Parts: sequence; structure tokens; C-alpha cells
Amino acid sequence: MVKVGIIGSTGYAGAELVRILLNHPDAKIVWYGSRSYKDEPYASVYGSMFELVDDKCLDDDMDKLAEAADVIFTATPQGYCAGKVSEGLLQRAKVVDISADFRIKDAARYEAWYGIHHPTPEFLPEAVYGLPELFREKLSGARLVANPGCFPTCSILTIFPWVKAGFIDPDSVIIDAKSGTSGAGRGAKVQNLFCEVNENIKAYGVATHRHTPEIEDQLAIAAGRPVTVQFTPHLVPMNRGILVTAYAKLLRPVTKEEGKELLDSFYKNEKFVRVLPPGLPAETRRVKGSNYADVGFIIDERTGRLVLTGAIDNVVKGAAGQAVQNMNIIFGLPEDEGLNMVPEIF
Amino acid sequence: MVKVGIIGSTGYAGAELVRILLNHPDAKIVWYGSRSYKDEPYASVYGSMFELVDDKCLDDDMDKLAEAADVIFTATPQGYCAGKVSEGLLQRAKVVDISADFRIKDAARYEAWYGIHHPTPEFLPEAVYGLPELFREKLSGARLVANPGCFPTCSILTIFPWVKAGFIDPDSVIIDAKSGTSGAGRGAKVQNLFCEVNENIKAYGVATHRHTPEIEDQLAIAAGRPVTVQFTPHLVPMNRGILVTAYAKLLRPVTKEEGKELLDSFYKNEKFVRVLPPGLPAETRRVKGSNYADVGFIIDERTGRLVLTGAIDNVVKGAAGQAVQNMNIIFGLPEDEGLNMVPEIF
Amino acid sequence: MVKVGIIGSTGYAGAELVRILLNHPDAKIVWYGSRSYKDEPYASVYGSMFELVDDKCLDDDMDKLAEAADVIFTATPQGYCAGKVSEGLLQRAKVVDISADFRIKDAARYEAWYGIHHPTPEFLPEAVYGLPELFREKLSGARLVANPGCFPTCSILTIFPWVKAGFIDPDSVIIDAKSGTSGAGRGAKVQNLFCEVNENIKAYGVATHRHTPEIEDQLAIAAGRPVTVQFTPHLVPMNRGILVTAYAKLLRPVTKEEGKELLDSFYKNEKFVRVLPPGLPAETRRVKGSNYADVGFIIDERTGRLVLTGAIDNVVKGAAGQAVQNMNIIFGLPEDEGLNMVPEIF
Amino acid sequence: MVKVGIIGSTGYAGAELVRILLNHPDAKIVWYGSRSYKDEPYASVYGSMFELVDDKCLDDDMDKLAEAADVIFTATPQGYCAGKVSEGLLQRAKVVDISADFRIKDAARYEAWYGIHHPTPEFLPEAVYGLPELFREKLSGARLVANPGCFPTCSILTIFPWVKAGFIDPDSVIIDAKSGTSGAGRGAKVQNLFCEVNENIKAYGVATHRHTPEIEDQLAIAAGRPVTVQFTPHLVPMNRGILVTAYAKLLRPVTKEEGKELLDSFYKNEKFVRVLPPGLPAETRRVKGSNYADVGFIIDERTGRLVLTGAIDNVVKGAAGQAVQNMNIIFGLPEDEGLNMVPEIF
Repeated sequence: MVKVGIIGSTGYAGAELVRILLNHPDAKIVWYGSRSYKDEPYASVYGSMFELVDDKCLDDDMDKLAEAADVIFTATPQGYCAGKVSEGLLQRAKVVDISADFRIKDAARYEAWYGIHHPTPEFLPEAVYGLPELFREKLSGARLVANPGCFPTCSILTIFPWVKAGFIDPDSVIIDAKSGTSGAGRGAKVQNLFCEVNENIKAYGVATHRHTPEIEDQLAIAAGRPVTVQFTPHLVPMNRGILVTAYAKLLRPVTKEEGKELLDSFYKNEKFVRVLPPGLPAETRRVKGSNYADVGFIIDERTGRLVLTGAIDNVVKGAAGQAVQNMNIIFGLPEDEGLNMVPEIF
Repeated sequence: MVKVGIIGSTGYAGAELVRILLNHPDAKIVWYGSRSYKDEPYASVYGSMFELVDDKCLDDDMDKLAEAADVIFTATPQGYCAGKVSEGLLQRAKVVDISADFRIKDAARYEAWYGIHHPTPEFLPEAVYGLPELFREKLSGARLVANPGCFPTCSILTIFPWVKAGFIDPDSVIIDAKSGTSGAGRGAKVQNLFCEVNENIKAYGVATHRHTPEIEDQLAIAAGRPVTVQFTPHLVPMNRGILVTAYAKLLRPVTKEEGKELLDSFYKNEKFVRVLPPGLPAETRRVKGSNYADVGFIIDERTGRLVLTGAIDNVVKGAAGQAVQNMNIIFGLPEDEGLNMVPEIF
Repeated sequence: MVKVGIIGSTGYAGAELVRILLNHPDAKIVWYGSRSYKDEPYASVYGSMFELVDDKCLDDDMDKLAEAADVIFTATPQGYCAGKVSEGLLQRAKVVDISADFRIKDAARYEAWYGIHHPTPEFLPEAVYGLPELFREKLSGARLVANPGCFPTCSILTIFPWVKAGFIDPDSVIIDAKSGTSGAGRGAKVQNLFCEVNENIKAYGVATHRHTPEIEDQLAIAAGRPVTVQFTPHLVPMNRGILVTAYAKLLRPVTKEEGKELLDSFYKNEKFVRVLPPGLPAETRRVKGSNYADVGFIIDERTGRLVLTGAIDNVVKGAAGQAVQNMNIIFGLPEDEGLNMVPEIF
Repeated sequence: MVKVGIIGSTGYAGAELVRILLNHPDAKIVWYGSRSYKDEPYASVYGSMFELVDDKCLDDDMDKLAEAADVIFTATPQGYCAGKVSEGLLQRAKVVDISADFRIKDAARYEAWYGIHHPTPEFLPEAVYGLPELFREKLSGARLVANPGCFPTCSILTIFPWVKAGFIDPDSVIIDAKSGTSGAGRGAKVQNLFCEVNENIKAYGVATHRHTPEIEDQLAIAAGRPVTVQFTPHLVPMNRGILVTAYAKLLRPVTKEEGKELLDSFYKNEKFVRVLPPGLPAETRRVKGSNYADVGFIIDERTGRLVLTGAIDNVVKGAAGQAVQNMNIIFGLPEDEGLNMVPEIF
């Protein structure tokens, strides 16, 4: 039984972790960390958990936590985890960081995009980018995992194989992404009030969104050289889900069959990636509440472009579900344990 | 041209006032008051107003405002208006208070339900309850108008005629009300975040909601004696609209025709109240964006009860629209000026 | 392994059955019945099921189905199941009817409210009303189960104990219910289009809704005499969930402690009913995606009334989840098998 | 007073026409055409219009209509208007066709994209593409106006000036568009039911959407040569609004100031186009319920691309509002008459 501690358990990613882990046969939450709700019953913050969680929220004492838990999930603002991690801590507990602190290998690049100082760059080389479909082997036994961002998870799974195969020009990639509002977190901000979000759609962070370098770094691995992409996220009036629509110049004509074969082959052992039939666009509803990523493609012969679509549940495959998938791999558990949720019909 | 000052112009009721008044032929906003956004361009708070409002937000100096404006709308938290009103102020400007400060004639009753001290009870007798359909004569020339609450507006228009006519037992009245989320205001609270409100419905303030005494006081006028009602509001995942479903014991059998005749007669000169055909329930969509109140009834012979339904747009007839209607009456303008919005089709 | 056939598997209740049963360790779907989508892959109707269900939809041949399945779920329009059930069929397969055909014991009453002829009233005495919290013993080994309606499930669980205990006057009960739009089914009707439902709330079926007699019949069991209730459903712009707000006259003063003790005692062995602390209203979000029913109460001393609130997920505890719970009992499986979904955080 | 007839008055574009024209001082609807609801009171189809429209729906007899009306709006499926228009008809009444029949000058191109035969190509040369911001002079006195599509209106207003000025490579243009669900019309289709649309986002018509050639034809005018664009629409769970996010390669470095100057100059006399400050993305909420088009731009120096955003209300500037704007121009009325709706705050 893996003992789990969660820092930031009352945020949305943290709460989804709770929801998933309550049904995980080999894990047990021993620490519900939440500075904001310290000493309050967890179920008073999330009424869903009434009678399912009796614990109260605890503060975020990483040291005590490392004694109590085998693994610590940090579902916290940027900078927190990097400020706490240490050799001593990692010797006592594994860390799956759901923030961005260890996703970007180049500390200067991290600091440029995030605008904050990285206090512990010495752990960047060790940190494993926790996208199991690409880095499963490195994850086994890892001490420090950088759980990927929601947009990067969806973007990379959707685009990586095409870059890797050399079918598209990586610098032509334009990612137009759409996210449900849970991606904005649970902070009390006017811009995230119901009446401000409902019946509206808008782009944000155009040309500056901090998930851009994370996507570029991974696609660079596929390309074998640095890559620059255009990334634009949008806020959609729904709770969950990310849809990526990506555009790229084909480097040569590709048939539907070739494309399908590419994806089928790339993801042939991947339970959580579902390759859609050619021509069928992904929809967020089809993966809602599950750990699946659906990826699809349409070849536009008229324009010579490839239109790629990918969908995930931002809170599951884009955060808590993927974190549990990483935990399962770290501890040698079946990778899908606790993650067999069937996507919701609506 | 009536010069208008708005205190609290960046709240939802205040902003809807702005929207309505921009198309009012005989009114002009001279003061966009907003403590929170002082010195910021109004259009940076509400992007809708881009190029339509060039003004910056001003502070809430009631004294200066009384010099600049003919009428002051206070779209403010409870207690603000009562703390500012004075004989000197009322001699210089009319006040339409969109808060609850002057709605309840008995200061002790106000204090008991609202839990705050009333600093200026001496103005309670003068204040006119601004429901034009009931008190039009008193409004003409009034100096201080208590603009009714959203739930009370809808509840009273729906129920008053039946109590007045003696068709129902007023103490049997149960009001089950449903409100769009704009009713919760624009404060940055976790409970009003998109993800907390969307895909949920809940009751709140059960047995304790502060609109209860306001409804009772008005129905008491209809009954000619004190009245106790049951009032339960619910929060609905939509932006606008209030639906009231009210239940009452019939004191004697009533036919559809009698009921229709009662309402038609009661509201025969009321442009903004639309009497629905017997059996047709009101829907919030049918009044959305307009100053209309739709009222309907169903006689349930099986149970001996009357089921009343009423719908308004909480931000229009339930707040800003009614405030403008009151302003029009005070200044002798046509009552519907600026208020001829056709309800939206969706 | 229980072999399951579903008639109407492409409706919303049918599809939720599929979703639940895919994770049920002791059940296997052998027949995806759907007249509308016959011969089409099930996953082409519900993209969520892509790669999870490979079967095609089959027609609704009850006889063949009785050969193939141990239990048949009929998620069909009223009249279908009653027209197909026979002694021969019931000897070969259990039937859990998700329609209303066998919920009302008095055929004449059924016919009066539903406006259709009941062709097989001879099975009404045998049919067990499938609310396990009330009729668990009768369900064990039953051949024909009438799965309760969504509104009745929520209403009865919320109100029954209070009537049974004699705390309230049953004829004073007024049920104001609110339902997500999935309750309206998957039929292609203009009134259920997104733009018609979104940003609107309305009552429907006032004084005439067909769940009324079903609720009355069960509360009559509690009261030991016939009961007449007022029932008004409303359509809410959300996918899932039913909220019941019920009002009743207290027959004598009741304390919070007495009320809590009553519910705790009544539901002490019921995993799927959660008794809320006194004063806390139920919310649909707290049970979303789960088989839980939350029940709560508020005593209004001012009015002498009890305000009861209850919440379920209409598609789970109000339909498919309860059907699986009934199946588990019929076949002697653990009652919660396949039903341990933690309610969603949003 | 312009006498107006509407064919298809019960569809969403038709109903919005009604809503707008009811407040138009110089127009009067004389014919509410609706084959589906013939002889039914218009207000029974749209409860919003209760007591505002007393007329019944009439059939779609174009000949009779041409006698009764000065202008006919055809808010009808593709093919209808082209099948009815004739010299005789145009001599008696102006026609503003809200369908696509006369938007594409090349009948073969129309037939290829729409898959239907064009019966009256002889009127294509005469038909004026009704985007007043580009073709105002031709509209004055026109007999046959092709009211632009919703996506084309938003796309063209957003992109045209940049192509015209030679700042961007027109063939590099990628338009990722997002539309509220009213764009799908009022047909009773499963895919447009509330539960199918809500909490979902998806692309549709990828590489094949029929608004593509319409956009290309207009941008070709700006470019002075044929243009190929990538166009992908998405369905968003909201009622109203279109957001266009467009990407294009800059042909040379451009400063914010140059860009702003370009747009300010291009749209300097255009009341209904609002040029946003550089860097501020458009939002659908900011134009909701109004005839405004907001256009903005962000220069991404890192990628060498221009990111353009544009927002309209698809039912107003994208359909009914623009149709009224065209009517005003045709008849020499002030262009903004009846169109001064302030955008909604939510």
C-alpha cells in the first residue's frame, strides 16, 4: 500500500487526485495538505467527499510529510516545489510535482518564461518528464517526476509522432488549444466567476503562454533539433477538457493509410492513447472523466496541411490521472490501476 | 436631460444600469462611481462598453455627486446608502437605492434580518417602495426610492393580486425561487467560480433569506394583516433570470376564467407585466434582457392549491430596469423610456 | 458472470448502464439493443466507448435476448416492457424495467396518468418496486423489478422517513423538484436543443406530471393511508442531477437532534444514502456521477414547516445505477459492486 | 415605413430579425413566413414575443409576399432563394438573402462546395455581397443582396485589411473559428441537444466547411489574386458568438503602432467595427447581443507571425443585424437604425 501525501489537496488538481486515489486499490492518502483550509474537514471543502473522507486538512510541512508518505504530490503554485525539494527529502519520499518547476531542463529558459527564480536547478537533470507514453523507462524508480502541463500533454501526444516521423515541418506547427475553466484553478478571481466565463470564449496568453517552451522542448526531442511553435490557448465555458487543434505543413504528400499506420504503430502499446479513424476530429466529451487521450488527424490536400486534433480531460490525463499513472510506474504497480474510469456519456 | 450618478457602477446591477442608460434619450450618466476601480477606464472593466463609454471610474463621494447629478443610484452593499443619506443630500438630488436599506419600514425588523444597525431610520417613512405597479402615485416626485429586491419583485407581482382578492390563504404561501448567478454579484468568491456553479443546483438561505420580510411586508398590504411566508431561493447555472414557483391553498374553488380575469384586471394598465394564459408556466428565457415580468397560474383541483409562476430578468426588472422605471416616474418622463428592450430569443 | 442484455442501450439511461457495467466485475453485456442504430457500432453512437465497446447495436428481439442474457434491462418508452413480458420470458431471464410500466400497482391508476392501456396487469402484483433502501428483501430473487423513476427515487428517499415517523402531515407535502436535461431523454426535439434549454429555467407538467402517483403510492405505504402530494418538476440547464426541495407542515415541534436521529436510524445500514448535517441543503454536484442520494432537512420554527432537500444523479441513482444495484441484489452479488464511483468534484 | 417580409421567421436568424425590427423606427414586419408553424401564433413559437407580436405564421408564397412587402428576407436553407428569385420578383421587392445562394460569384464553385445545383446563376453578377464595411456603395439601391455568412463576416473583417496592405502572406492564413450553438440552427437534431453540446468542444467540417470559399473569394479581392486559406470551425457550448483566431506569416516586421494605424485607418468611418488596442484579444462576450465586430491583433516577434482575433454575435452582425444594416443602406435610412444595441455585460 503506497502512502500518499498531497500538498494543495483542495485545489482542483489536488481534489481530483483525492477522487481517483479513493478508488485505488494500492494507495492510501495519509496527508491532505491545504494551507487555506488547515484544520477544516476535507469534506466541508468538497461536499462530494462527505462520508468518504473523514480527515481534516493539514498544513504543508514537507518534512513531516516525507516521514508519513511514500510519495508526495505537489499540486501547488509554481516555485513551491522547487523551493522545498532536497536530497534529504528525495531520499525519504518520491515527489511527483504537478507544478511546472521541473518540466523545463534549462533553468534560464524556465526563469525567462515564468518570471521567477529557480532555487534548485541542481535537481533538473534528475527530474523525469512524466509523460509515460514517451518516457516510461525513465520513470520506473524515479525520485522526482515533473508531471506535464495539461496543454503540453495534449499537444505533445497529438503532434509528437508526426514530427518524429518527419512528415511535418515542426516550425510550421500552430497549436490552437481550448480549455475548460477548471484549468484556471480554484483561486477567487473575478475573471473566473460564473457570469464572466459563461457565454463567452476568448484567447489568452497569446504569444506568451508558459506552456509554450514545454511543448517546444518535447517536440525538439522528436525533431532532433530546436523547434519553435505557435501556441494559443482559449477559455471555454465548460468545466473540464482540453481540445487541441494543430496545423502543420506536410513535408510530402501523406495518405490516410500512412497516417493511421504511423499513429497505430507509435501508440500500439498505449492503453491511454486512442487513435481515431482518419477524418474524425477529437471531442473533449469523449474522454471526459477518464485518463484517455484521443488523437486524430485530417489531411487537407487542398492546402497541403495536416490538421491534428487531440482531446484529454485536463484534470485527469492533464493533471491528477497522469500523476497517478506516474506513481503507478514509479512503484511498479500496474500502470492503469485506479485509472480505469470509462469516459462519461455527458 | 436627467444627470445620473451611479455608486457601484462596476457591480452587475450598476453595469446593467449603464447599459440601459446609454440608450435612454433623456438621461446622461455623469458619474461612474467605483471604489474598486477608481481612476481606471470604465471600458477596461466592462469590455462591452469599449468606445461607448470613455469615462474613468470615480470614487464614491456622495456630496460631490449630489452637485453633479439629478439622481443618484446606489448599487451598493447594505448599509452604505443608509449611512450617507441626509436631508441636505435629498434636497440636492433624488436617490434610488438599489440596496435593501429602505425597503423595510420597521428598522428593528431590518436589523434583525440583516444583522446590521440602521443609522438613519428617520428616512424610512419617506422612502417609497419602488414597485411602480403597486405604488406609482407615491413615486411621482419622490426623493428617496427603495428599489425592490429581485426575488421580492418577482414574488410580489406573482402573488399580490391573489392575496388582495382573497382567493388564497396568505400564510399558506410557499415560494420556491430560482435565480441566475448574477444575483450573487461580482465579488471574487470561490463559491461563485464557474466550476463551482456550473452543473449544479442548490438551495441557499433556507428559512433565513433576507428577502423574506420584504415579501411578507408587501403581501401584508394585500392581506390587510401580517403575513408569514415560506421562501427558499436556489442558485441556477445561468447568468440571468429569476423564476418563482409559488404554492398556496385556495380559500374557495376558482375557475381558470376567474383567475385570468383577476390578473387581467389587476394588471390592465401595466405594460411591463404580461399575464400568461391559464396553465402556461412562466420561463425566464421569455423575459431575458427585458423589463417584463411574466405571471401565470395553474389551478390544481386535485390538491386544492394554486400554483403560481413568475419570471423576470433579475438584473433588469429585478434591479437596473426597475430603477430606471422609477427614475422615469420621479422625473415625469414616459415610464417605459429606455426600457423597450424586446426579450431575447435565447 | 451475469450476462446482461439492454433494450434501449443508446438512450441516456441505457448508455449509462453500459458505462457502469463496463467496470462491473461480475457482469458482462451480451446484447446492445437499439432499434434506431441497429447494425451500427455502439461506439459510433457514443464516442466515449471507442475501443471499449466493439459490439454493434442489435434489434430488440426480447425472445432471443432471453436466451442470451440472464437479465434484461428495458430502458424503453412506457408500454414497451408491459407489451413484451410473459411467464415464458420471466422463466428464462430476469427483467429490470427502467420504464414506468410496473411501478404503479393499480393498472387503472397507471392508465389514467399515463394515458395508455396496460396490456399485462397480471404481472403487477409480482413486480417489485426497486428501491432497495425500502424493499431490499423482496428484491432478492425477484423476476420482475420496476426500477423507480428519477424524481420518485429522490423524493421518496428524502420524505419517506418523516412520514413514516409521523412527524409531518403527508397531505401537506409540496415537492418542488429540479432536473438536469438528461432527464428529457435523447429524442430529437426542438425543446431540448441546446439554445432552447441553456440560460433558461421553467416548470413543466405542473399538476399533471406522471411521477406524482408513483410518489404518492410509496408515501402512502409510509403513512398507512392514501396520500395526495403536490409535485412540480423544473428543467435546469445542466446535464445531470435532480434536486428535490420539499415542504411539509410539522405535526409537532421537532428538534434538530430528533430529526438527525430519525434519519440516521432510518438509513443506518444504507451505504448509498448520506444523511447531511441539520441545516445543510443538498446539492446535485455533491452526488454527480455517483449512486449516492444525499438527504437533508431544515426546521423552520418561524413557519412551523420542515424543509427537506435531497439530491441524486438522475442517470445513476435515478436510473442506471439503481438498476445495477437491483441486479446485484437479485443475483446475490455485493450490492455496491460496480457502483463505487466517487462523486465528481465538478 | 419599410414593409418587411421574412421567409423562415421561426428559425434563429429569422427570430432575431423579428427582435431587431420590432424596435426599428422605420420598418414594419408584414409577413411572418414559416412553413413549419403555418397558422400558429408567432408568439407561441417564441414566448419572448408574447404580447409584442400578435401575428400568425404564414406560408412562404414569395409572389404574394412581393406584393405585400418592400423587402424580403430569406432566412432559409441553401437553394430556396435561388429557386424563387426572378426578374419579376426583384422588380417588386428587394431581396436580402441570408442563405448562401448568392455569396459565391462562380456558380460552379458554389455547386462544388454546396453539392447542390444553382438554378438561377444569371442573378449572380447583380447580387451584392452585403458586407457594408467593404461594399457600401454597391449596396445603395441594390435589388438582391447576399448577406454574408457568420464565419465569413468575422473572418473577413478581421483579416482583410492586413491582406490588402500586403503585411501578410494570404496563403499562410489559418482561421481557427469558434461558434456558439445557435449557428447550428433550430432543426431537431440529436447532435444539437443540450446534453450533446454542453460540456463539450469539437471541431467540425475540417477542410470541408462551406464558408471556406466565401472567405477565400473576399480575401482574394484584398490580395488581387486567388487565395487559399485553412478554415476550421468549432462548436462551443454557448448560445451566441463567433470568435476567430487567425494566424498568418508576416511578410516583413510590423510594429504595434503600424498595425494599429492600419486598422484605425481602414475602419475609421465604421461604427460597427471596433479596433482593439494592440495585444488585447477579442472576446465574444464584448459584442454579445450587438451589431459590433471587435477586431484585434498580436504581433508574435518570436515566430514571425501575426495572431488576429475577431468577435461578433453570430446572430446579429453574423446574420440578422447585418441584414438590417443592409436594408437600411438599400432604402437610404441611417445605417445604424434599429441597431444601437449596447453589448450585454453577460
